Parts: sequence; C-alpha cells; structure tokens
Amino acid sequence: MTLALHPDAQDLLFRTARTATRFTDQPVGEDEVRAVYDLVKLGPTAMNANPLRVLLVRSPQARERLAVHMAEGNRRKVLDAPLVAVLAADVDFHDDLPRLFPHAPGARDRFAEDELAREDVAVRNAMLQAGYFIVGVRAAGLAAGPMTGMDAAGVEKELFPDGRHRVVLVVALGHPAPGAGHPRGPRPDYDEVVSTV
Amino acid sequence: MTLALHPDAQDLLFRTARTATRFTDQPVGEDEVRAVYDLVKLGPTAMNANPLRVLLVRSPQARERLAVHMAEGNRRKVLDAPLVAVLAADVDFHDDLPRLFPHAPGARDRFAEDELAREDVAVRNAMLQAGYFIVGVRAAGLAAGPMTGMDAAGVEKELFPDGRHRVVLVVALGHPAPGAGHPRGPRPDYDEVVSTV
Repeated sequence: MTLALHPDAQDLLFRTARTATRFTDQPVGEDEVRAVYDLVKLGPTAMNANPLRVLLVRSPQARERLAVHMAEGNRRKVLDAPLVAVLAADVDFHDDLPRLFPHAPGARDRFAEDELAREDVAVRNAMLQAGYFIVGVRAAGLAAGPMTGMDAAGVEKELFPDGRHRVVLVVALGHPAPGAGHPRGPRPDYDEVVSTV
Repeated sequence: MTLALHPDAQDLLFRTARTATRFTDQPVGEDEVRAVYDLVKLGPTAMNANPLRVLLVRSPQARERLAVHMAEGNRRKVLDAPLVAVLAADVDFHDDLPRLFPHAPGARDRFAEDELAREDVAVRNAMLQAGYFIVGVRAAGLAAGPMTGMDAAGVEKELFPDGRHRVVLVVALGHPAPGAGHPRGPRPDYDEVVSTV
C-alpha cells in the first residue's frame, strides 16, 4: 500500500521532520506564521468551533515573562528560539458558534450554561488543532519544538490575564541547528495500537 | 510567503480535503490503515507517550454496538461508512514510558500515583495524535468523517470494557460520495486567532 501523499511531502511532514530544541539564527517572520495558519485553519474541529488561539512571543521582555513559568529544562528554549508560539484554548469559543456553526442555533446557549463541558471541548479541540499546527509548521519548512513542561496556570496568569484561555502547548519555531536532534524515540508497533472488531 | 509543501499536497491534506459524511462502496483495507499509522506514528507527543489507541469497527455486530451510543445524527454514519475508527486515549500509557521515554526513569512511577494527571495527559495527547491521524487519512487518499456526538461513557463500556480507555473521537473512513459535502464553514481570521507580544 502506497500513500497518495508524495514521498517528499511525507518526509517534510513526518519522516525526516524532527522535534527541534536548538535553532539557527534565521528569523521566523509573521508572514510565515500567517501562511501556516491559512493552511491549518482548514482542518476540521467539533462544531467548527476552532477554539485554538496563538500568542506569538517575540520580544525579550515577553520571553522572560514566559520563561519563568517554564520547566527548568525549557527556559533556554523559549529565550533562544527564533520565535515561540503559545497555543491556548479559548474557553469562550461558544460566543463565535452562531457565526461559525449556524446549523445548531442552540449550541451557544447550552455551552454558556456549562463551563466544565466548554473547557473540555475547548482544550480537546485546541489539542486537535495543535496537531494540525505542528504539521503546518513543518509544511512551511520550519521545525517545531513542542513543550508541555511548564506551570500552565502561571503562564495563563502572566500572558492571558482575561482568564478565558487555557494554555495547551508552547511551541518553539525556527530552522533547526545542524546536528541538534536526539535520536528519534521508539514508537509503539501497529499491533499494540490498532485492533479490529 | 510560499509554503515548502507542494501545492498538490496542501490540497490533498487541507485545501480540497473535506470532512465526509457519505461514502462510496469502495472498501478501506487494513493495509491502508497500516500505511496511515506508519506515517502518523512519527508525530511528536509529550514524553513520546503515544497514548492514542485505535479500534477499527468493521463487523455489522460491532457497528450496531457502537451505533446505539452515537448521537441520533451519527448512527447511520457508523453503520454505513466503509470503515469506522474509534480513537481512544490509553490512561495506562505510563506503563510504556520506560521503553518509549527512557530519559525520565521516574516518570512512570509519578504517573502511577496520579490518575487525574494521567487521564489529562492521555486525552490531550491522544487528541494531538488525532490531528495527525486525520492528516494521515487524507494522505492515504481517503476522507475522514470525525464525530464527537456520542455517549462516550457508553462507547467505552461497550467497546473498551477494561476501563483504561477514554474515547476521544469516532472517525468514519472511506472514499467520499460525489457531491456529498456541505459548503465549508467559515474559519476565524488570522487576526482573531493570532496575536504577538
């Protein structure tokens, strides 16, 4: 079985693509992030809710504010990467549903009454979109360095003071420094993951 | 700004790709699912934990057992699609960490003591992998029909009686029936989603 996707694209997105922890000095422009978003925004989400929000952390001051809430081993990465994207879930995504998903006129009001369900849907779908986002970063010829080691509540207080965002992933972006990667970790075999009924 | 990914691949994975709700009769073989998994297993997860598990629901009996727990509007889809994949998070993923992520020898024991944290990490990373999976289904030239409208606890009881799996997404797989798509829903603009500090 051969995939329809061209082997070069398989390499770019998955096979030779690798998580990066160190990058060259080459900057990442906002035009690149815009091109990534214009591609990955098309990926599907539940009720077309699109709860993912992206905060690009570029200034030295903002990097410092982020770094203090990162795990020890991730601090240098957010200070040194060409660009850092904080991916967050908007818990108030339901206010956009009348526009994004007009087929279900009652959805906004049902979510308005159920903050727990809303947070769960927001975080799950933001993680789904985070998967598209990482693929999109690689589609732009960049490497992604996703991180979850952080005090997420601290990051939220520092960078999302409106209280309506839950941080789901911090992603360093740039061109990988040569020879900077670890060997790839093993993956579970097909038969450990997939079964049939 | 042009993406490094070839325009044909952009079309296949995102631009012309669409969520499908009706399919042709062309079957989806296990070799196709294997090819998808062999590609998307390479996507990164936190601590290389790879908590996603996939249950392929193929037999009429298994489809009936799934369908009764789906939302009304999703029942026909799981009965009629060429193949249905139930994506679940393995809450006991930590038992594989010594093999998958030997760099952090204490990680398994820390998660063993904290079932809430474990479930959260499992579900979030399974959703991240669900994003890769949907991209991979499209890379195989298939269409995906992801669904969350279901009684997830009911599906778990029915199809994952070991109690260690949380269902995160049900995905219909196949070749889309011609003219079966709705118009694509609007997406939020870049400036509504991305900001810079």
